[in-house]
Amino acid sequence: MENRSYSLNELAAHTGATVVGDGETRVYGISSLEDAERGQLSFVVHGRHMPAARRSRASCLIVSSELSGDLQGPKLVCEQVYLAMARVSRLFREPPHVAPGVHPAALVDAKAELEEGVRVGALAQVGAHSRIGKNSRIYGGTYVGAHVQVGEDCLIYPNVTLMDHCVIGDRVIIYSGAVLGADGFGFAQDEEGRHVRIEQFGTVRIDDDVEIGANTTVDRATFGRTWVQRGAKIDNLVMLAHNVTVGEDSILVGQVGISGSTIIGRHVVMAGQVGVAGHVTIGDRVRIGARSGVAHSIKPDLDVLGLPAQPQKEWFETMKHIRRLPKMRDEVKELKARIEELEKSLDREQR
Amino acid sequence: MENRSYSLNELAAHTGATVVGDGETRVYGISSLEDAERGQLSFVVHGRHMPAARRSRASCLIVSSELSGDLQGPKLVCEQVYLAMARVSRLFREPPHVAPGVHPAALVDAKAELEEGVRVGALAQVGAHSRIGKNSRIYGGTYVGAHVQVGEDCLIYPNVTLMDHCVIGDRVIIYSGAVLGADGFGFAQDEEGRHVRIEQFGTVRIDDDVEIGANTTVDRATFGRTWVQRGAKIDNLVMLAHNVTVGEDSILVGQVGISGSTIIGRHVVMAGQVGVAGHVTIGDRVRIGARSGVAHSIKPDLDVLGLPAQPQKEWFETMKHIRRLPKMRDEVKELKARIEELEKSLDREQR
Amino acid sequence: MENRSYSLNELAAHTGATVVGDGETRVYGISSLEDAERGQLSFVVHGRHMPAARRSRASCLIVSSELSGDLQGPKLVCEQVYLAMARVSRLFREPPHVAPGVHPAALVDAKAELEEGVRVGALAQVGAHSRIGKNSRIYGGTYVGAHVQVGEDCLIYPNVTLMDHCVIGDRVIIYSGAVLGADGFGFAQDEEGRHVRIEQFGTVRIDDDVEIGANTTVDRATFGRTWVQRGAKIDNLVMLAHNVTVGEDSILVGQVGISGSTIIGRHVVMAGQVGVAGHVTIGDRVRIGARSGVAHSIKPDLDVLGLPAQPQKEWFETMKHIRRLPKMRDEVKELKARIEELEKSLDREQR
Repeated sequence: MENRSYSLNELAAHTGATVVGDGETRVYGISSLEDAERGQLSFVVHGRHMPAARRSRASCLIVSSELSGDLQGPKLVCEQVYLAMARVSRLFREPPHVAPGVHPAALVDAKAELEEGVRVGALAQVGAHSRIGKNSRIYGGTYVGAHVQVGEDCLIYPNVTLMDHCVIGDRVIIYSGAVLGADGFGFAQDEEGRHVRIEQFGTVRIDDDVEIGANTTVDRATFGRTWVQRGAKIDNLVMLAHNVTVGEDSILVGQVGISGSTIIGRHVVMAGQVGVAGHVTIGDRVRIGARSGVAHSIKPDLDVLGLPAQPQKEWFETMKHIRRLPKMRDEVKELKARIEELEKSLDREQR
Repeated sequence: MENRSYSLNELAAHTGATVVGDGETRVYGISSLEDAERGQLSFVVHGRHMPAARRSRASCLIVSSELSGDLQGPKLVCEQVYLAMARVSRLFREPPHVAPGVHPAALVDAKAELEEGVRVGALAQVGAHSRIGKNSRIYGGTYVGAHVQVGEDCLIYPNVTLMDHCVIGDRVIIYSGAVLGADGFGFAQDEEGRHVRIEQFGTVRIDDDVEIGANTTVDRATFGRTWVQRGAKIDNLVMLAHNVTVGEDSILVGQVGISGSTIIGRHVVMAGQVGVAGHVTIGDRVRIGARSGVAHSIKPDLDVLGLPAQPQKEWFETMKHIRRLPKMRDEVKELKARIEELEKSLDREQR
Repeated sequence: MENRSYSLNELAAHTGATVVGDGETRVYGISSLEDAERGQLSFVVHGRHMPAARRSRASCLIVSSELSGDLQGPKLVCEQVYLAMARVSRLFREPPHVAPGVHPAALVDAKAELEEGVRVGALAQVGAHSRIGKNSRIYGGTYVGAHVQVGEDCLIYPNVTLMDHCVIGDRVIIYSGAVLGADGFGFAQDEEGRHVRIEQFGTVRIDDDVEIGANTTVDRATFGRTWVQRGAKIDNLVMLAHNVTVGEDSILVGQVGISGSTIIGRHVVMAGQVGVAGHVTIGDRVRIGARSGVAHSIKPDLDVLGLPAQPQKEWFETMKHIRRLPKMRDEVKELKARIEELEKSLDREQR
């Protein structure tokens, strides 16, 4: 996509890998083993990809020392191939284009403050008293309300909505259609069973290096803040209700839903479509399997799964028992027959 | 957030509470027990919050008569603390800013009609033959198609889409990214198994006092209307398919999905991520637990849970039995051994 | 909604139906049996609708030969009533209005190419090097990035986001709020457990006659493409992760989520809220019941259901056994009692 090129020596320095072959060889892109063209780099993350690696037209492969012996040609040898690949990938990709400066068809309030290098795309708007940090990009069609703070080097993609008073850190990426700062969902019932809104006075705070996926919603807190901490990665169509906290480096995969006031620890991983009840605490490093429903707090370091979620081992055990139910049914029937037989025998004998 | 203030006497009149202390004390905001500052109001909804209540810097507490005796300082005493809090909260919060009148960068069709006090934000558009009622606000970036009716005192937040012919009542709130009036999802198969669109001629009707959450979708009916009735509250990322009816004062929490032509009664509550099949009827006051899957109609006043959803008691019973499966397995094994023993004994004896 | 009219002879020619009655009778619209007015067409898809059919004010009914004998008045008789209805429905509905040409408040880059008959609505934007095919419509507020290709006769509804390099075929419909081409969700962990982005170099390709629902997200591939093939229909709030393939004529109902690199065959049907793991293959003509969770590949022609998904018959069998658990519990208890009795008897006897 881009025209940059790097020598293998440069890439080795960037990733900590060792060059095998001519370090001055230049590569101008990265791709999969199958799609890589001459002049591009590729990578081998598993032994089962070795046949594809041998067929690949890539001009250099990132590969582990364990597998590298079986491959010809220039190589970048390292132990964490996937990590090296990720690091190299950033060198070859520019974010989508938006012209420098403020597009003439963007609307930046006179009372908004844009730091050096900020780009604002066509038909984007930035409200009064909002501040956009150095080199951040607000893409076309995005709505930034009033009193919003966006840090440095952020990418706020097209058609995002940042409602008033949201606070966004540095190097944050927010994908299209995400909505941050809509009101939390809270009501009190009146005497006739009608719902009376509880106004939401809090804010949304997104810390450094967070990503928020497309069409994800992060609601404003009732009081205080809904808070996504440093390095957490949130996928598409996720719902974070009011006053939720997501801890550092946690990962929430697509369509996860977190109910109000729940606190998620650090390095937690939730697979797709997980749901978590309100007012619970998920400990650090907990891993929750896809589609699980979590109704209670979970202690750190547990792997859980199921509906309701339980320790993964127990869940698999339960599933095994459920699958065996037809067999158990037959056994019980058989035992019944044998007991009847025994009863008759004994009866005959005693008569 | 705002600079308004009210005397305790005024708040007592507004909520039906009784003032304990100086009724002329003025408060200028509301917050949680922990975050409230001097001059703000807070509230005690449960006895377990009493220690926090005693530490709170709030200048007045809303509290039940049961708990009020144990607290110093000015109080608003009433029986429904949460409801009083909700009512007071509305006094202290203004909706997000949008300048009066039509922003010069908004596009209102010459054939659209805006009643008195309507505000239309920058880069919003209102199509031909649409009518926006008194004091309603269309925020920036929102698309209102042709022949749309919006009632009075509505808040249509940024980046909402209201397709042609939608009808919205009074005091409706629609959050960012919501899409009302996209075509329902209906196809007939042709002779080669290809899907032929069934065009969707109906509309979407949203009655008074409804809220529609961020990134929620409400599809247009095939014929007739998809209908959300008075006072229903729909959370974020909910999907209402074509020809669904949601009854008065019902609550649908985040990521709920309702299939086509299903009718939901009044005062129904669906927790997060519930799914309901098409063409079923959910009776009044039914409560459906989180992540339940509903395939059949449900009679009024039932609490259901599970996949497939069943009366909550039965579901808990089923879960109990499932958890006991390993134990039952062991019991059956043991019984089998004992039967074998009996059989052998009897066999020996009879020989 | 529209003012067109057609004679029954014309409709018969269009659908392959046979006219019973005056073929010159003209109808100007189509509706349900209940809502149809004089001059409109309606249809009878099932015998249970015969009473409504007899009461209907419709001027003509589409009906099967089996049921037609019992109905008075003009008829269009055919075997596939639903299909004929779908085909007729397209004659009576125009897509929502957008003025011909490029709206003065739209922003089309000088380096973008619009073919004949293209319409671009107000506050829509089309980026550099993008090409929009003949008669396609880009509605107001939609963002089309750079290097995007859109085919002929497409409807790209308001507030859609098409990121750079997406490729869209002919007659594609994309509903409001859909986001195509956001980055796939891929990270490598560094030495401190922090997540390093894997940049996403691939694209999104949508083939002819596909529909993409409101607020659905289709992520860009890591390398290569995320691909929705001809005639597939995707409902609202669906998530297609990077490198997913959806086969021809497959149907994905609302809130379905497909994880990365999964391949879905042709004529597959997934009901609402289904989740599918990454890197699996779903065979042609597989049908997956609502809310199922699929962790493994599925062979062609299977109907599956449940969490984890299993052949539908097995799932119903399992459910039956689960429902019988309380009864089995009682049986085991009873057997235990009888064994104890037997043991005592034998014991007494042997003493």
